[in-house]
Amino acid sequence: MSEKIAVSIVGGSGYTGGELLRLLLAHPSVTIRQVTSERLSGKYAHRTHPPLRKRSELKFSPLTELQECDVIFACLPHSQSMQHMPSLMEKAPRIIDLSADFRLKDPEAYARWYHAPHQAPQYLSKFVYGIPELHREEMRSAHYISSAGCNATATILGLYPLLKQQVVEPQSVVVEVKVGSSEAGAESNDGSHHPVRSHSLRSFQPTGHRHTAEILQEISFGQDLKVHFSATAIDMVRGVLATSHVFLNQTLDERAIWQIYREAYKSEPFVRIVKESQGLYRYPDPKLLWGTNYCDVGFEIDPFSNRLVVISAMDNLMKGAAGQALQAFNIMHGLEETLGLEFGGLHPI
Amino acid sequence: MSEKIAVSIVGGSGYTGGELLRLLLAHPSVTIRQVTSERLSGKYAHRTHPPLRKRSELKFSPLTELQECDVIFACLPHSQSMQHMPSLMEKAPRIIDLSADFRLKDPEAYARWYHAPHQAPQYLSKFVYGIPELHREEMRSAHYISSAGCNATATILGLYPLLKQQVVEPQSVVVEVKVGSSEAGAESNDGSHHPVRSHSLRSFQPTGHRHTAEILQEISFGQDLKVHFSATAIDMVRGVLATSHVFLNQTLDERAIWQIYREAYKSEPFVRIVKESQGLYRYPDPKLLWGTNYCDVGFEIDPFSNRLVVISAMDNLMKGAAGQALQAFNIMHGLEETLGLEFGGLHPI
Amino acid sequence: MSEKIAVSIVGGSGYTGGELLRLLLAHPSVTIRQVTSERLSGKYAHRTHPPLRKRSELKFSPLTELQECDVIFACLPHSQSMQHMPSLMEKAPRIIDLSADFRLKDPEAYARWYHAPHQAPQYLSKFVYGIPELHREEMRSAHYISSAGCNATATILGLYPLLKQQVVEPQSVVVEVKVGSSEAGAESNDGSHHPVRSHSLRSFQPTGHRHTAEILQEISFGQDLKVHFSATAIDMVRGVLATSHVFLNQTLDERAIWQIYREAYKSEPFVRIVKESQGLYRYPDPKLLWGTNYCDVGFEIDPFSNRLVVISAMDNLMKGAAGQALQAFNIMHGLEETLGLEFGGLHPI
Amino acid sequence: MSEKIAVSIVGGSGYTGGELLRLLLAHPSVTIRQVTSERLSGKYAHRTHPPLRKRSELKFSPLTELQECDVIFACLPHSQSMQHMPSLMEKAPRIIDLSADFRLKDPEAYARWYHAPHQAPQYLSKFVYGIPELHREEMRSAHYISSAGCNATATILGLYPLLKQQVVEPQSVVVEVKVGSSEAGAESNDGSHHPVRSHSLRSFQPTGHRHTAEILQEISFGQDLKVHFSATAIDMVRGVLATSHVFLNQTLDERAIWQIYREAYKSEPFVRIVKESQGLYRYPDPKLLWGTNYCDVGFEIDPFSNRLVVISAMDNLMKGAAGQALQAFNIMHGLEETLGLEFGGLHPI
Repeated sequence: MSEKIAVSIVGGSGYTGGELLRLLLAHPSVTIRQVTSERLSGKYAHRTHPPLRKRSELKFSPLTELQECDVIFACLPHSQSMQHMPSLMEKAPRIIDLSADFRLKDPEAYARWYHAPHQAPQYLSKFVYGIPELHREEMRSAHYISSAGCNATATILGLYPLLKQQVVEPQSVVVEVKVGSSEAGAESNDGSHHPVRSHSLRSFQPTGHRHTAEILQEISFGQDLKVHFSATAIDMVRGVLATSHVFLNQTLDERAIWQIYREAYKSEPFVRIVKESQGLYRYPDPKLLWGTNYCDVGFEIDPFSNRLVVISAMDNLMKGAAGQALQAFNIMHGLEETLGLEFGGLHPI
Repeated sequence: MSEKIAVSIVGGSGYTGGELLRLLLAHPSVTIRQVTSERLSGKYAHRTHPPLRKRSELKFSPLTELQECDVIFACLPHSQSMQHMPSLMEKAPRIIDLSADFRLKDPEAYARWYHAPHQAPQYLSKFVYGIPELHREEMRSAHYISSAGCNATATILGLYPLLKQQVVEPQSVVVEVKVGSSEAGAESNDGSHHPVRSHSLRSFQPTGHRHTAEILQEISFGQDLKVHFSATAIDMVRGVLATSHVFLNQTLDERAIWQIYREAYKSEPFVRIVKESQGLYRYPDPKLLWGTNYCDVGFEIDPFSNRLVVISAMDNLMKGAAGQALQAFNIMHGLEETLGLEFGGLHPI
Repeated sequence: MSEKIAVSIVGGSGYTGGELLRLLLAHPSVTIRQVTSERLSGKYAHRTHPPLRKRSELKFSPLTELQECDVIFACLPHSQSMQHMPSLMEKAPRIIDLSADFRLKDPEAYARWYHAPHQAPQYLSKFVYGIPELHREEMRSAHYISSAGCNATATILGLYPLLKQQVVEPQSVVVEVKVGSSEAGAESNDGSHHPVRSHSLRSFQPTGHRHTAEILQEISFGQDLKVHFSATAIDMVRGVLATSHVFLNQTLDERAIWQIYREAYKSEPFVRIVKESQGLYRYPDPKLLWGTNYCDVGFEIDPFSNRLVVISAMDNLMKGAAGQALQAFNIMHGLEETLGLEFGGLHPI
Repeated sequence: MSEKIAVSIVGGSGYTGGELLRLLLAHPSVTIRQVTSERLSGKYAHRTHPPLRKRSELKFSPLTELQECDVIFACLPHSQSMQHMPSLMEKAPRIIDLSADFRLKDPEAYARWYHAPHQAPQYLSKFVYGIPELHREEMRSAHYISSAGCNATATILGLYPLLKQQVVEPQSVVVEVKVGSSEAGAESNDGSHHPVRSHSLRSFQPTGHRHTAEILQEISFGQDLKVHFSATAIDMVRGVLATSHVFLNQTLDERAIWQIYREAYKSEPFVRIVKESQGLYRYPDPKLLWGTNYCDVGFEIDPFSNRLVVISAMDNLMKGAAGQALQAFNIMHGLEETLGLEFGGLHPI
């Protein structure tokens, strides 16, 4: 018991906070010290996060009462995290930040995509970008990790092996993600009203999606990469499916593509290559990944052109947020990487 | 053109107002004079009600600018309608009210079910209760009609022929309705947030549902009727399905029950008896009624007891609100009852 | 009555047949003579198509009993239509074919995309390709019309004005359609099983989609067009949303793009340009079009590149099949083009 | 390793088989010896059950190759289980049967509800009815357990404490369950076709539901119980919600009802009393239980009558099938009852 890692969650009333609570409660090496929420201070966390029912008597604390601990998971809204970071750093030697505030290394890129200057640029270099498949070694000794965006993670894990091997034309990458409503967070608004949002196919971000900046940062590999990114919200709660269209700069058959992916991911516990020639589940599908930390990746070569279609799926609250943050936590602490992330999904669902 | 009936919609920003606008625009005998909304005053109605796109350039007016017209459809929120009724009556000789305020004849019943005294009890007797199948004759000469509740309409149309014939035990009627999210209106709230409301089976009113009062008023027929009513919200936008469990006080076979229903509804343009011994659509299903003014009614006799299960379905915004109001309007004006209500539904959907 | 156009539907048990029946029954200039189905011969059509309940007593006939009439709507499965076409031509002077068999002018293109030689190439030149916005004049005197594919229609109507004006790079058009389950027809299979298909995001055709051939045929305008097409099935029954990514070959601002679309579609009764800077319905969304014959088109210019994202939506059974066929029928007969196609959609839904 | 309990699953291609595989693979005290399927013999189980991907290389075996093992989970279709039971009993000393064949003690009740004579009545007395909350002690020494029906379990756990205390009128219990599509199994058919089944509210069993027989058997407690049971299928894959209407035969306030439930379930690991006076999750909702083994139970007293509405929810494939079977397995073997059943559900979903 005394050896457990004491963690606190700052900003625990939202979906990523709730997901982290759920995962951390079941984690054998962790003890949860506090979970903060200003609005819900003093209330039971299980009232807001039903999976905690009969499993935890934890109550929300105000941020002002945050105590010292070993690790803070910061789940504050975007732009608030950078304001609170200095004081959080005084409370814990290790911080995993789930906001978008510390993902980009370049404050100018931040300003360009977020339409406002960064307020704490001096911290940007301290954070490791939070995709283990790309930055595992840095994570082992990291103190600060910035968890990656959900759509960015899905896209990056789909394209990373191809871009690294420089087998695609870097100027004409088109990515279209289909996302569920939980991506927009726990706050209700007119656009999330059930009669409005149900059955909708909402082109909520045809251009200008902020996650593009992360993708460019992480998988350019020195090339002048252009990622033409669009996002469509569908009638789904959890899940993201990224369909990426890239154009091969050389002739590669299916076997060669397989080889590139296998090489990149053969030891990865949470990336699966999913590509079946028959059956009902030939390509990645996020519904099969609800609650899991997997990113499934598949592909198909266009027989009529040099296009390669890459399909990557995951649960935006897991591999796209809380799950990936916990994976990074495990790496940071030298623990088994899959600890607390063993759930394999449900079917049918 | 000069012969058209000039109608205005008061409180036109919500779902029943939008549905009425849609229907009235296509009605050959109607011209829409005004549609009011305080919040959206001056804005195009098609921004709020997309089916009006490229079909109407109507803008919302404030209530203070309401002009005289032939008929007002009042779609104000419950309890506001009774406050505005005196001034509305000065603007138009005929009013169809879609709130709950004038449905009950007995102000004490109102107080009991709505937990507040009625504020304009002197008007209660002026209104005809708005189900044409029960009150068609009164409607022909009526000036004021109070449109019935959606769940009440579904239940009443399912049970009315049986109660009228007094063939069921009046003390043990159990009704359970399954309803969609549009019943709760156009205002978003935490409970209507898509990630929360999707897939939910919410027992939002296990007891105490206000529509019970209307049902008791309309189908007691002198008996001491008890309706044990519960409502469950499901993942659906439009539609209500009422499953009513009644106990026969005499032996009646299927043929006899058929006869009772046929007798009651054989001339009704909007009630269909749906009961097939085979096929995919054996009983009423609200999805087949989206956009239509039908109430479909079916039944099954329990082979092991004297229970009769009655199944009635409709679109809560149509036969449960705007459609039924327009049906009453047609009757009121001596028009063909189905005018503007011809849509027969979509399949598959 | 004697002036009505006598039509028959060949192959009327499926979804396009049912949709045509529904529309034609309400069409003021039409009388339905027969509807054929081998499997359901002798049975009431309303058993299979619930919107016909209490509206039609029509029964299915076998194809062998098909009588002469004015117009045949052929809804046979792909590849069967070309086999029956000679005998159908003996029964009626005008035929609107809803299969894929007569869409392509070039039998080699057919063989390439359908992986089989065309069996009646001598008829290909007789058919007008069935999108009125492109071929209205030819339709006025046509005897044979081949109704366009649903995904092709959505894509073509989104891109046609741009390609015609030759303002986009023809080699790098990427199109991704999101489609509902009704596109796959009325036959059940393991992949359409509700527990499997619900919530799924199925990349059913990442490459090689046959509708690509139609798109290339119709909007190349002499350029060497490449359309990189992918299709993803989502948890929706009706509807298709095409998101097309094109790259401008010249600098055009939003006003110029608007101008191009307005020029092309200003007189079109069924194409709306939907692009709002605020509100909940900023871009086309198929849920708003269920049951309508509209194709809504919107766009957004990428501020960081020369990409233009075009969003087009429709109901695949209406503008993508039966509705568009009826629109062609109206043109063919010199009738008001919108006759029988007035329904404006439902909201909320 | 050598101490692990060797289990086989007979009939493992369906949903309960897949769910068991998923659970047993993660169970620390179990080793899976075989999983049988005639149709899929020789194929990887993960092709049919995607949660096994990258987790198991198990292949299906034919039943003829079934070897001896410690425990057989029999997931054969109803009526086939009784045919194979003698040979299964030769293979393993302990059997947990998930079909309906051995749930009823009385062969006449079987014949009445299943419309066919029981083919192996001599075995009926050997099986313990599989709800641990009612039969835990018998299970500890049982060799044969018949897992309970999903709808029966939800109803029984909701009503058991009340019936046992004999506080309700036994003649007038009305139960209405709302169920998802996975209850009907993995075989596709016309009624499970996605365009047909989506959005449907199908009254598939208004009367005569077979699970009624189990309910009567288990909670009559010597009274002449009548359970008026109806089942409606909704657009959901997993989950069952039972709404039970009972009439108190004495005056009991909320506190007294609480006391009755608390007394019955206070030590139960998988039954939670869910009843909140505020918040979004006031009553049991199956979506919160997807993948868990919980049965949540809540209630509301009707202020206008002696009716008590009991609401009980669970995942039909877990507490309603595989999960409850595994719970029984744990009890049978003296293991911690929650072993392998720790998953607490997802939210939002």
